[in-house]
Amino acid sequence: MPQRYLLSELALLLGADLIGNEAVEIFGIGDAALAQSGQITFVANKKYLPALAEGQASAVLLQAPLSDCTVTNQLIVADPYLAYAKLTLIFDDRPKTSESIHPSAVVAPTATLGTKVKVAANCVIEDGAIVGDNTELCAGVVVGANAKLGQSCVLHANVTIAHHCILGNEVKVHSGTTIGSDGFGYAPSKADGWVKIHQLGRVVIGDQVEIGANCAIDRGAIQDTTIKNGVIIDNLVHIAHNVVIGERTAIAGCVGIAGSTTIGSGCTMGGFVAINGHLTIADNVHFNGGTVVTKSIDEAGHYASGSPMQDVRTWRRTMVRIGQLDEWAGRIKALESQ
Amino acid sequence: MPQRYLLSELALLLGADLIGNEAVEIFGIGDAALAQSGQITFVANKKYLPALAEGQASAVLLQAPLSDCTVTNQLIVADPYLAYAKLTLIFDDRPKTSESIHPSAVVAPTATLGTKVKVAANCVIEDGAIVGDNTELCAGVVVGANAKLGQSCVLHANVTIAHHCILGNEVKVHSGTTIGSDGFGYAPSKADGWVKIHQLGRVVIGDQVEIGANCAIDRGAIQDTTIKNGVIIDNLVHIAHNVVIGERTAIAGCVGIAGSTTIGSGCTMGGFVAINGHLTIADNVHFNGGTVVTKSIDEAGHYASGSPMQDVRTWRRTMVRIGQLDEWAGRIKALESQ
Amino acid sequence: MPQRYLLSELALLLGADLIGNEAVEIFGIGDAALAQSGQITFVANKKYLPALAEGQASAVLLQAPLSDCTVTNQLIVADPYLAYAKLTLIFDDRPKTSESIHPSAVVAPTATLGTKVKVAANCVIEDGAIVGDNTELCAGVVVGANAKLGQSCVLHANVTIAHHCILGNEVKVHSGTTIGSDGFGYAPSKADGWVKIHQLGRVVIGDQVEIGANCAIDRGAIQDTTIKNGVIIDNLVHIAHNVVIGERTAIAGCVGIAGSTTIGSGCTMGGFVAINGHLTIADNVHFNGGTVVTKSIDEAGHYASGSPMQDVRTWRRTMVRIGQLDEWAGRIKALESQ
Repeated sequence: MPQRYLLSELALLLGADLIGNEAVEIFGIGDAALAQSGQITFVANKKYLPALAEGQASAVLLQAPLSDCTVTNQLIVADPYLAYAKLTLIFDDRPKTSESIHPSAVVAPTATLGTKVKVAANCVIEDGAIVGDNTELCAGVVVGANAKLGQSCVLHANVTIAHHCILGNEVKVHSGTTIGSDGFGYAPSKADGWVKIHQLGRVVIGDQVEIGANCAIDRGAIQDTTIKNGVIIDNLVHIAHNVVIGERTAIAGCVGIAGSTTIGSGCTMGGFVAINGHLTIADNVHFNGGTVVTKSIDEAGHYASGSPMQDVRTWRRTMVRIGQLDEWAGRIKALESQ
Repeated sequence: MPQRYLLSELALLLGADLIGNEAVEIFGIGDAALAQSGQITFVANKKYLPALAEGQASAVLLQAPLSDCTVTNQLIVADPYLAYAKLTLIFDDRPKTSESIHPSAVVAPTATLGTKVKVAANCVIEDGAIVGDNTELCAGVVVGANAKLGQSCVLHANVTIAHHCILGNEVKVHSGTTIGSDGFGYAPSKADGWVKIHQLGRVVIGDQVEIGANCAIDRGAIQDTTIKNGVIIDNLVHIAHNVVIGERTAIAGCVGIAGSTTIGSGCTMGGFVAINGHLTIADNVHFNGGTVVTKSIDEAGHYASGSPMQDVRTWRRTMVRIGQLDEWAGRIKALESQ
Repeated sequence: MPQRYLLSELALLLGADLIGNEAVEIFGIGDAALAQSGQITFVANKKYLPALAEGQASAVLLQAPLSDCTVTNQLIVADPYLAYAKLTLIFDDRPKTSESIHPSAVVAPTATLGTKVKVAANCVIEDGAIVGDNTELCAGVVVGANAKLGQSCVLHANVTIAHHCILGNEVKVHSGTTIGSDGFGYAPSKADGWVKIHQLGRVVIGDQVEIGANCAIDRGAIQDTTIKNGVIIDNLVHIAHNVVIGERTAIAGCVGIAGSTTIGSGCTMGGFVAINGHLTIADNVHFNGGTVVTKSIDEAGHYASGSPMQDVRTWRRTMVRIGQLDEWAGRIKALESQ
């Protein structure tokens, strides 16, 4: 049975003004058009107001009172979307790992575990690793030797943290992600092929960082790969060695950032952004999905690349035309000089 | 020793007409040009017929009898490629997990396992999870709390199924894949940075779905992420929260689908297709590899985007020319108005 | 405490000429501008020479003696970058797995382990698998039935090697990578949807191959997927069934290679290169990051595709202009015929 809250309790929690029945019981959150009785919903954008009438929500988060609204129980907040985010915490039903070390977990005698650490089945914590208070390791997590995890982190099932890497406090890492794999560094040798450059740096992650599923973040070659406070990263993201990501930068799925590139703070990247190595990107730079970044960017702004989607027959002609562009340039010049 | 079949047995299995020696023994399948004696091969396209003469196949799947063929033992079927697919099942030599719970596996007392369930070493099945009859969990699989797996599923080694997610019957998931990681949802807050939106939905997967290796499929924010019956998904595919994939849609490797997009049934996507969030794609839409989809599509068809591969010097000039296109438009207009 | 070496010992190791104090003690490697006292650095490109004055390096690897250099202890070598690579081996501080089978590991009685094999906690080695001398399996690695690993391999935590796959000697595989997942093969059937083609081939990997984190390499459909000696592969790379990668080819992060494509030796691919299936790429072909390869390439060279990054407003106009190119072709012709 999910926990139930009085609407008045939610109002108190959010610092919201309450209109309507303060005693209505709320057991969950629903999308405006699909909400059931007993759920609270939110309208973050006026265009979604009509959806309220389609659903059965027992209450709604709004920026201003609405008198002609089918949902008469209203919590008025400055930012309904932010208020919704805050409510998700109390309605989250993820079963947490028990506050104990599961007997099947393998914890090295030289590892140091804080208080209230939760270690699920089949985890491995290697020599010299440190796990901070309240941190939760879900099933199958591997924490390498001498790695250091801060407090109140959550490492979901089958995450790997390699040796010597450092995570701050309140870091969340989703399943399948690897932190601290070797960077892709080799010296070419005619005699010996690619001679491996062993990667001597670490990955150092700040506080309140969240990293999605099946990402790979490489350790630095000599210095560290660095992810600063408040960064959020989606799934299947590749971050190469020596990269630095500034505070609160947000990186969507399938992005790849090549080695030794420094990204500013407050940046955002859509999916599949590809950033070359050894670049410097300023603060507050925003990349559309699919942008290929081959040059440093020294001022804030919004950038994109790519070509339009077309039906495939038109696109084939477009491909030919793009191949002719350099020839066209000459023809246009010739016409102009006539 | 692989099992051997008489050609007559294979004909019976496939409902094929048999020409030649029905007593020839077949122990495996070979590519036409490389097949060894004792192997059966297939020709799905006439242009590969000459390859038969290069190989030593003892039998061949054909759409029509061939009198002047070096392979005289022939099984005649309506669709040789489909017949080949069916034969791969009987020649598959993957060693199956034993019909037992390996003593190293950790199965919560509150989990429910059907009959003939196979659980390999170091698996973890958490509280309240349900595993259907005949389902096979290979080594290191984690099934989260209250997750529900149907019958005759195969979860390959090191797969993670997060809490509350649902898989139908005959679902196959390949190694390293994560199902049910949190969607990438945050509310921006000037005071607090990115405020996490805890993801309250599930991933719900239908019957006869196959998902490749190292994919990440996020749980829904409020509603569920949904993968319908018969969908096939290749490796390293990212499916964001609230996405819906229609029946029998096929998704090649390295595709990414952003949040809240709905894909129709019978669609196909080549590799690296990138689909924006909050779009609706009709049934039977086909995307070439690399298509960037930024708009909804409301009719079946075949779409593409991208620019041609060139030698790098030509390409650099093309890049400059593309950058000049807007200027050119003006120059062409000026020429026309003269 | 890291191990310390006399500069004379490093000179001997590298076959370098030593200038300066041969008795200076070196405990690690630093970047030129950031090196601390006790560290050695390198200058592989003259433009980085000024950085030496910013750091405190106790010695430097150079191609030729430098008289006016702040770092007076110099090792003179033909290739400073290669010499640096060689030094990283001795300063690598990764704690190695103990030379034993951890009691929590599950090793099938029918598996064969060479001498000095290292098996960390919670590994699984299945029936009939063979692990060569000195090979190291880090925590949580799964080696499938009848797989065969050569000597002196390192499989990092949570790697999966599927049944029957073969790795040569000195192969390194980083965390989360899956080798031997099923290729994406199905026969379409109106009655039954996508009928699975069980994948009967293996992945066969040569010697001195390194594969990054969270990659997926599919087993062959009938023949094997083949990665030849000396190949290096970065993170999140997808290699489909039946692909052949020639010796010493280097593949950067987020690359995808579709089924049955053959890549020559000595090739290089930047990040996000996408190669269609059933192609043949010659030796010594180099692809810029993001190249979409839709045709076979029969001669060595350097190829690219893609369009330039622009500020987003300019880019939107460019998108429109690209969509008009076919119309423009006609207008330019019309102007020319006047």
